[in-house]
Amino acid sequence: MAHNTKVVADTNAPPITRILADFVAGYPAGKFRPDVEREAHRTFMNWLGCAIGAARHPTIESALAAVKELAPSQQATILGRSERVDIASAALLNGISSHTFDFDDTHLKTIIHPAGPVASAALALGEHLGSSGREVIDALILGIDVACRAGNMIYPEHYDRGWHITGSTGMLGAAAASARLLHLDAHATAMALGIAASQPVGVREQFGSMTKPFHPGGAARAGLTSALMARHGFTASAKAIEAPRGIAQTYSTKCAWNEITDELGERFEISFNTYKPFACGIVIHPSIDGCVQLRNAHGLRAEDIDRIDLRVHSLVLELTGKRTPRTGLEAKFSVFHACAAGVVFGRAGEHEFSDEIVMRPDVTALRDRVQAQVDDSIDEASADVTVTTRDGRKHHLFVAHAIGSLQRPMGDADLASKFHGLVDPILGCAKADALITQSMQLANARDVRAIATMATPS
Amino acid sequence: MAHNTKVVADTNAPPITRILADFVAGYPAGKFRPDVEREAHRTFMNWLGCAIGAARHPTIESALAAVKELAPSQQATILGRSERVDIASAALLNGISSHTFDFDDTHLKTIIHPAGPVASAALALGEHLGSSGREVIDALILGIDVACRAGNMIYPEHYDRGWHITGSTGMLGAAAASARLLHLDAHATAMALGIAASQPVGVREQFGSMTKPFHPGGAARAGLTSALMARHGFTASAKAIEAPRGIAQTYSTKCAWNEITDELGERFEISFNTYKPFACGIVIHPSIDGCVQLRNAHGLRAEDIDRIDLRVHSLVLELTGKRTPRTGLEAKFSVFHACAAGVVFGRAGEHEFSDEIVMRPDVTALRDRVQAQVDDSIDEASADVTVTTRDGRKHHLFVAHAIGSLQRPMGDADLASKFHGLVDPILGCAKADALITQSMQLANARDVRAIATMATPS
Repeated sequence: MAHNTKVVADTNAPPITRILADFVAGYPAGKFRPDVEREAHRTFMNWLGCAIGAARHPTIESALAAVKELAPSQQATILGRSERVDIASAALLNGISSHTFDFDDTHLKTIIHPAGPVASAALALGEHLGSSGREVIDALILGIDVACRAGNMIYPEHYDRGWHITGSTGMLGAAAASARLLHLDAHATAMALGIAASQPVGVREQFGSMTKPFHPGGAARAGLTSALMARHGFTASAKAIEAPRGIAQTYSTKCAWNEITDELGERFEISFNTYKPFACGIVIHPSIDGCVQLRNAHGLRAEDIDRIDLRVHSLVLELTGKRTPRTGLEAKFSVFHACAAGVVFGRAGEHEFSDEIVMRPDVTALRDRVQAQVDDSIDEASADVTVTTRDGRKHHLFVAHAIGSLQRPMGDADLASKFHGLVDPILGCAKADALITQSMQLANARDVRAIATMATPS
Repeated sequence: MAHNTKVVADTNAPPITRILADFVAGYPAGKFRPDVEREAHRTFMNWLGCAIGAARHPTIESALAAVKELAPSQQATILGRSERVDIASAALLNGISSHTFDFDDTHLKTIIHPAGPVASAALALGEHLGSSGREVIDALILGIDVACRAGNMIYPEHYDRGWHITGSTGMLGAAAASARLLHLDAHATAMALGIAASQPVGVREQFGSMTKPFHPGGAARAGLTSALMARHGFTASAKAIEAPRGIAQTYSTKCAWNEITDELGERFEISFNTYKPFACGIVIHPSIDGCVQLRNAHGLRAEDIDRIDLRVHSLVLELTGKRTPRTGLEAKFSVFHACAAGVVFGRAGEHEFSDEIVMRPDVTALRDRVQAQVDDSIDEASADVTVTTRDGRKHHLFVAHAIGSLQRPMGDADLASKFHGLVDPILGCAKADALITQSMQLANARDVRAIATMATPS
């Protein structure tokens, strides 16, 4: 046996787990500011569209085939599909599908995609319990607050080390939302958070494989099942998050406890949620936006372009530096493909990241003419784009903030348009319209089963 | 958004994930040395007894109540009980029960309890598939090799940081065993390992709560479901373990790649497995052993003892320093209670860690007369024990290696006696005898369903 290396630990953390549990169990129903309410509904609608849109993707077919081996009971809806599975598996599958296109939401301070773990647990459980829309919206706001505050506490060190922070904070958010829907008291809610704390999901090496979208799904399942266990008296440490050998200090050297407590119940992190205009990782968005803007402003065509030069933060190439992607999934991690597609099509939705488009000669030819240079004086949220045409002209644009950012948010009409693009091919335009309406009024729904049922094929 | 902290990464790791996958998929059936075969059967029998013994513990009642909310199908046995659940939940529950008494096995080089995650996945899946005993034993040996080699790679840094290494390597072992039973090829096995790599379970802060035994159970479930997903084409990074942002470098700064590859297929880590003679954490065993030996050698009675002085490695007090435990679970993390119980009863099985015994006046009185002093010149595997009687005599013993260690292993008769102590109260002596016989001949069983059925009440 080896010696016990002494690991520096903070033994004076505030009681984070219990503070969050009190908050989640005790916050009064529906007492949120109108802007928080609005963002919760937009978050739900955007998540629902992403999950339905990916319902027939091979990632879901594969995960569902595995779940079927467990011969699950038919408790809850798989969004966009006619099969039903047990609530834990529904949370898993809907969490996977909502992130499959990498087209969901982003809490920009932490790069967390918060709806995936939280909404997937909340709808599956709410459907089973017959929860009201009000209860689900409350659970969504509170669960996202828990996940994103946990993220603020440990970002960026935790993420830089290699964790996919969506899944490694999402289990806490999903547990919080599930505990709230189950009406657990503060003690049981603390136990739910504690059980979930032992189940972080995901490392960044999985980017480009099906296991990336598995992360929010796995976190949703972990959080939901943790809350069920706590409901039945299963115990965990009441300091599972903050203790010296709790999860925060175990997987991060940055533990800013004040990020949990500052303005708790006043500032809600869902206010900082954003929705992706492009079906790929957020760090490429400024580059795509710049290319699309220059294309439209100058009527550029791919064949007229000699080269595209990007100057970007190092994280862009670290995350999305795949030079020659061969599949749609890989292409989501290629700033080169994304910019080429943006110029060729004027957009970068899911279709532009399909296997077919990735191998199209005009796209690959332009992709090979995209150059990227690291410049850490440029923020991750920005990009410097120069397009040089074959006749020698240079078009330059510095994008400080991409469309979809907090500074240039997607409007409700943008979100609805995105929703149609995702849902129409699966459920048709009329159902998509009805789902948009129902989503944006979810807090008024007597029972969320209605919207879950509406989200399946007739 | 914050800056990207540069985290040092090793970009030159060998292809660990693929090497392990080739090994697990390709190792010929039943081609193990006799000593490896024997240890596999002892490991299985010891695990089975621990799981059956805890079948009616509140930890299992609580976890089972939660699983029942999913209305699971009746695919597989819960050891020691008449209910049946789906295979993922059976892996979870049997993994929890096998570690509930903290009385299972230990790979001493890493403090991993390897059977919990691996055997729990293998039996649940093997029962469903109708696997032969040979297949299950092969899966057990290979799965334990994967988990323990992964542990060797990262121990002690990973453990010292706060991870409960049984659950944070166990998901790899359970995935390997499950992939083997499913006859996955090397590629699909690599995907199973990759999906599992994103699901480490457990931090040490949970020690003393029900979530500690949840860790091997959660790892068993994660590994089994990962293999099912891989079987149906779900993908992961083929370098999920070793890549710069793979799991090993994300959760450990020590990554000794050679621990995976050295003597792979020649040296099997199951050869270094040991079985607990006392129902508590391994680090207290030398102290208990010393107390029991002195008690027996000198006919000591609790009321004659003035004080017991221990000199132990610092890890002993870090892990088991609870001064005044109030429950059986807490008592397992109290070297003071354990030594007092050892003197009063001459043993420290599960009964001596029951709530009732923990509060017994003669035990608490002696417990308060146990003193422990840290001395890091003493190995974790050793203890220096001095008992001073009220008449002033001092009895001293230095225990270099406790009973149950590699140097002083439990014999087959010791294991059988321990098995009876655990199983007789649940299934009766006759069934316990039959299970011992069947376990020790498992490789000859045509179908493991027979032993699974035998492990339930009539």
